[in-house]
Amino acid sequence: MALTDPDRLFPIEPAARNVARELYDSIADLPIISPHGHTDPSWFAQNNHFVDPAQLFVVPDHYVFRMLVSQGVKLTDLGVPFADGSVEENDPRKIWDLFAKNYHLFRGTPSQMWLDHSFEHVFGIDEVLSQDTAESYYQHIDAKLKEDAFRPRQLYDQFGIEAIATTESALDDLKWHKQINDSDWNGRVVTTYRPDATVDPEFEGFSDNVRQLGELTEQDATHWQGYLKAHQIRRAYFKQMGATATDHGHASARTENLDPKSAEELFEKAMSGHFTSEDADQFRGQMLTEMARMSLDDGLVMQIHCGSYRNHSAVVFKHHGRDKGFDIPTATNYVDALKPMLDAVGMEPDLTIIIFTLDETSYSRELAPLAGAYPALKLGPAWWFFDSYEGMKRYRETVTETCGFYNTVGFNDDTRAFCSIPARHDVARRSDCAYLANLVLTGRLRKQDAFELAHDLTYRLAKEAYRL
Amino acid sequence: MALTDPDRLFPIEPAARNVARELYDSIADLPIISPHGHTDPSWFAQNNHFVDPAQLFVVPDHYVFRMLVSQGVKLTDLGVPFADGSVEENDPRKIWDLFAKNYHLFRGTPSQMWLDHSFEHVFGIDEVLSQDTAESYYQHIDAKLKEDAFRPRQLYDQFGIEAIATTESALDDLKWHKQINDSDWNGRVVTTYRPDATVDPEFEGFSDNVRQLGELTEQDATHWQGYLKAHQIRRAYFKQMGATATDHGHASARTENLDPKSAEELFEKAMSGHFTSEDADQFRGQMLTEMARMSLDDGLVMQIHCGSYRNHSAVVFKHHGRDKGFDIPTATNYVDALKPMLDAVGMEPDLTIIIFTLDETSYSRELAPLAGAYPALKLGPAWWFFDSYEGMKRYRETVTETCGFYNTVGFNDDTRAFCSIPARHDVARRSDCAYLANLVLTGRLRKQDAFELAHDLTYRLAKEAYRL
Amino acid sequence: MALTDPDRLFPIEPAARNVARELYDSIADLPIISPHGHTDPSWFAQNNHFVDPAQLFVVPDHYVFRMLVSQGVKLTDLGVPFADGSVEENDPRKIWDLFAKNYHLFRGTPSQMWLDHSFEHVFGIDEVLSQDTAESYYQHIDAKLKEDAFRPRQLYDQFGIEAIATTESALDDLKWHKQINDSDWNGRVVTTYRPDATVDPEFEGFSDNVRQLGELTEQDATHWQGYLKAHQIRRAYFKQMGATATDHGHASARTENLDPKSAEELFEKAMSGHFTSEDADQFRGQMLTEMARMSLDDGLVMQIHCGSYRNHSAVVFKHHGRDKGFDIPTATNYVDALKPMLDAVGMEPDLTIIIFTLDETSYSRELAPLAGAYPALKLGPAWWFFDSYEGMKRYRETVTETCGFYNTVGFNDDTRAFCSIPARHDVARRSDCAYLANLVLTGRLRKQDAFELAHDLTYRLAKEAYRL
Repeated sequence: MALTDPDRLFPIEPAARNVARELYDSIADLPIISPHGHTDPSWFAQNNHFVDPAQLFVVPDHYVFRMLVSQGVKLTDLGVPFADGSVEENDPRKIWDLFAKNYHLFRGTPSQMWLDHSFEHVFGIDEVLSQDTAESYYQHIDAKLKEDAFRPRQLYDQFGIEAIATTESALDDLKWHKQINDSDWNGRVVTTYRPDATVDPEFEGFSDNVRQLGELTEQDATHWQGYLKAHQIRRAYFKQMGATATDHGHASARTENLDPKSAEELFEKAMSGHFTSEDADQFRGQMLTEMARMSLDDGLVMQIHCGSYRNHSAVVFKHHGRDKGFDIPTATNYVDALKPMLDAVGMEPDLTIIIFTLDETSYSRELAPLAGAYPALKLGPAWWFFDSYEGMKRYRETVTETCGFYNTVGFNDDTRAFCSIPARHDVARRSDCAYLANLVLTGRLRKQDAFELAHDLTYRLAKEAYRL
Repeated sequence: MALTDPDRLFPIEPAARNVARELYDSIADLPIISPHGHTDPSWFAQNNHFVDPAQLFVVPDHYVFRMLVSQGVKLTDLGVPFADGSVEENDPRKIWDLFAKNYHLFRGTPSQMWLDHSFEHVFGIDEVLSQDTAESYYQHIDAKLKEDAFRPRQLYDQFGIEAIATTESALDDLKWHKQINDSDWNGRVVTTYRPDATVDPEFEGFSDNVRQLGELTEQDATHWQGYLKAHQIRRAYFKQMGATATDHGHASARTENLDPKSAEELFEKAMSGHFTSEDADQFRGQMLTEMARMSLDDGLVMQIHCGSYRNHSAVVFKHHGRDKGFDIPTATNYVDALKPMLDAVGMEPDLTIIIFTLDETSYSRELAPLAGAYPALKLGPAWWFFDSYEGMKRYRETVTETCGFYNTVGFNDDTRAFCSIPARHDVARRSDCAYLANLVLTGRLRKQDAFELAHDLTYRLAKEAYRL
Repeated sequence: MALTDPDRLFPIEPAARNVARELYDSIADLPIISPHGHTDPSWFAQNNHFVDPAQLFVVPDHYVFRMLVSQGVKLTDLGVPFADGSVEENDPRKIWDLFAKNYHLFRGTPSQMWLDHSFEHVFGIDEVLSQDTAESYYQHIDAKLKEDAFRPRQLYDQFGIEAIATTESALDDLKWHKQINDSDWNGRVVTTYRPDATVDPEFEGFSDNVRQLGELTEQDATHWQGYLKAHQIRRAYFKQMGATATDHGHASARTENLDPKSAEELFEKAMSGHFTSEDADQFRGQMLTEMARMSLDDGLVMQIHCGSYRNHSAVVFKHHGRDKGFDIPTATNYVDALKPMLDAVGMEPDLTIIIFTLDETSYSRELAPLAGAYPALKLGPAWWFFDSYEGMKRYRETVTETCGFYNTVGFNDDTRAFCSIPARHDVARRSDCAYLANLVLTGRLRKQDAFELAHDLTYRLAKEAYRL
């Protein structure tokens, strides 16, 4: 029995299904461009075996463990570490059993879809995961992980990846990327400049981070001009190590365009530690515009991810720290928030700012109208909770009519779960082909144009938008 | 001619329709669990005949009469009472004629769907309601209502109800429930603890209500500790009379978790009558957290309904009072609002808080992510204006991918229109089967899992979530 | 090869498609009622030939040129004038070539749909517009525009228009409408009273505009009573020239119902030029209620369009002025905002207030519940960015279940692109028939009722709501 349906996600009506399948067949084997994600560069640098099934599929993936937690399973029983790094449950089989026993919770979710895809297409399993099959699953996957073919570089090739971007702090030494670049392996793993820790006054250790940025760049980063210069130099270093983009994770979409003197004073306040929450927010907003200006100079593509209330549960944050599945989307205003930055640089045709949202109500109301007007602005794909069939469907349905296809930038998987990459891209390709087939069958798109678009959405737009 | 299509609400494509029908056939005859609603317990206690067709279908149902009003019919001509209880139009035939003449206004609405269902399946009528058929309809229904088989307990049995919850004020004496419990009838009609009048400082007569609560529980409820104790005692009484849940209708989702001293001071302010609107809002928020803590102790399931601007029309409120079809949904923030309560009790696996919304934009953005993380939080079904095929469809489509099926709690009808109960549950069952069939046909769900889920969504989840 | 599919926009499933086609065939040839739009009355008064293809399709249509701009084409290269009226690119062939070369950008958008419809059905072209066909297209259309059959009055007849409304400032002399009325042509071109320049204190030249209004009406409009009287007189003049409606474009839905003295003081403040932004907003809100009261007297239908952030790009506004594709929708609250006006006049059955939104989240949450209760309130069709197949589909799906069909008012094209009128109405008719067919096939609507509704949505509701 196959775990996955070969016609999954295609329209149900036979004529539309046929067109979707034709479109999909024409692009299914294209290489994967993965321009934004969170895989660990050390995997590709060291090419060590993955440790065990629980560490591969459960423990590091907050998509997976939050669902178990929501039904009463304890984080500690899933091997999720405490904030100090210690772990209560160390037995990967116990963790795996807990996961297997509760696998029905994932019915109808994208997690089930990519997990089944991995089980079948990466590990060659053909029975459903459950309490009954937990042990045979564990043994099977564990044995595979010990084979050479399941090491990171070999999987990279098997998955058909052409280029993959990781994300590193501005303070990262990028030693793994250096090691990859210096190796004889010809996979392409590029970094992305993520300056949050050095542009957000409320980030733990902000002023120290800024000082460290200064040391790394041999600038006096404690003064405004030196600080800006330090970012420019550090960006250049990231670019030299392969980066084509920056990434900015902000709670809101707020941007500012202060006069230089006000910006300088705000920076000094931020560095002094004596600032209000409003000051911090204003400074983050100012830095988005500064970063956009730097992108105009150095050509790095700018990505803005916003609208997440991070670490919503005080209890979980206190015991287990960040990234434990308690980041919750919030309503986000883009129209007012982006205006200062767009007034400054929005009409620049050589600049690319890619914006992501967790508030899907903004797609048709705000983001598609903005991306359908400003040359610098492009719309990132359905993100996070919307990285799913229905999410992608609503994205295309609410966005395309207003900003067309060409103000979007293809798919990105945004994942730290390596095995999910081919599965996620496959979902995106199938969803797009289903959408295109519906347009063709309802007379909204010529069939030959649909073939060209299928290729564009799968490959060309991501490659071009991210300058990969 | 049948008024209802036997394949209504199933997918149109034949293969999907077949699967939906198979799923539906497997669950269509399951008993009805109605865990939240507003039927009148005196019906089941006294088992009197319903009065006449107009009183059964038109006068008490704001879903029905507001549509007529929106097209220029006067509330008074529909027999809707004034605030003092007096009535201008007393002739049920005139009211029925006005309804029949305007029945086309309900085309494409869920009201038409359940009315036609009742006319056909409860009353055995096979012609369409219109001006022409008004009189024959009236005579037919009126005659039926005089038969024993159409008395409340008999309809309860005919409808296949296993358990039904009503909603009573904390100050209610529950005499009807007592009478039902003491009777030899074996229907299960349980009450629900609704404390709004005693926890909302802006409710008419709040401080008197609190005093009355104190008398009923022999506590000094005018002091904070006595007030809390009074609620605990009153909850225990409701529980003893069958209640398994509480229900809280608030304008917003705001919660608070004040220190005991601040809470006490706020209560004193509320009782004094000298408080601001912000004080009142804060107190309501505090009481949600207090009620959640009590639920942790006594096991009552907590329901929160929020986001309705009650009695929007000042004119209608002045002349006719509450619940006249002028309750309008508002945009509702859950992420910030629920945090204090969730920080206090959200990680408790033995607590069940069921949340409902009238702002469907919050489903994918806020509520599914929250319910997909916090063990105490479950998502109530599509409510009120969304208690309809399209509303239910969007609910499943926006919720399932993020929190799965098992963080939802089945359907509830929330109705005071007794005859609509089998029709509404039927719509929910059909909508769910249609959704499941689409998942099966697009390779997102295994067919055997769909059968299990159809049963869960229809019966098990409601029964377990509400501890019925 | 046809540019348009004869079954476009119909459901894909064959049985549903057949019903949609049957419904469509029954209404496809009905005359066009165009109750709200921005065509130029001088066209119909003078009946001059249109100038050239670029002026007809590209230069004046911000839907079209904003898409090219969003992909890096310069406004100046498209012949879009500067704020002072000067133009950089005067060669229509160059503009046309730029448009043709980038025509693929419109794939999947409603612009492509109506452009292809015009090319095929108005101009008889059967090849796809592209760089290769740019020249033959230009020559063909240019030649046609020189024919008598392509003059405005002839196209009006060819398009099957029964009545069309234009929109004029309260200060307009309506000379073109007078000329049309005085001519022997029997087309019906009515004006609409648009008082924005005289009711918005932040409008350029507000107090001068008010003085001018006073002169036109021989009132002392610089005092509150004279100002109101001037509006009444001017409305009467518009009505005499054919107007059946007023139109109000406001940034928000805010209304006020101040006591006369406060209103008078606010007006004086507005006239003095010394007012805050809040004063201006309050005054605009007050004037909506005043205009609603005047509508009660003179019977003009009131249209409120709100929620657009006008001229979002400071750069584009500075260089090119208003209406250049940079009007961006914003989240809009209707529940609180409309209450003062609805409390004043919302229960009046003889008043018609038609409300439009650019925030589609408000449809199911706010607008349908409001329109489904207040007799004076009707819901305008999917507007602007939602004037498209998916937009119309979501509109019906989110609105119908709550307020039915009869609280909506048919379609309006809201366009200044004359050739798009038959295409846009065709899209609306097809979309509605597709929606109705889906209701029929899922047992939610009787087929004979669907035929009646198809006629109502296409013709009767617009005619009656706008009193045309």
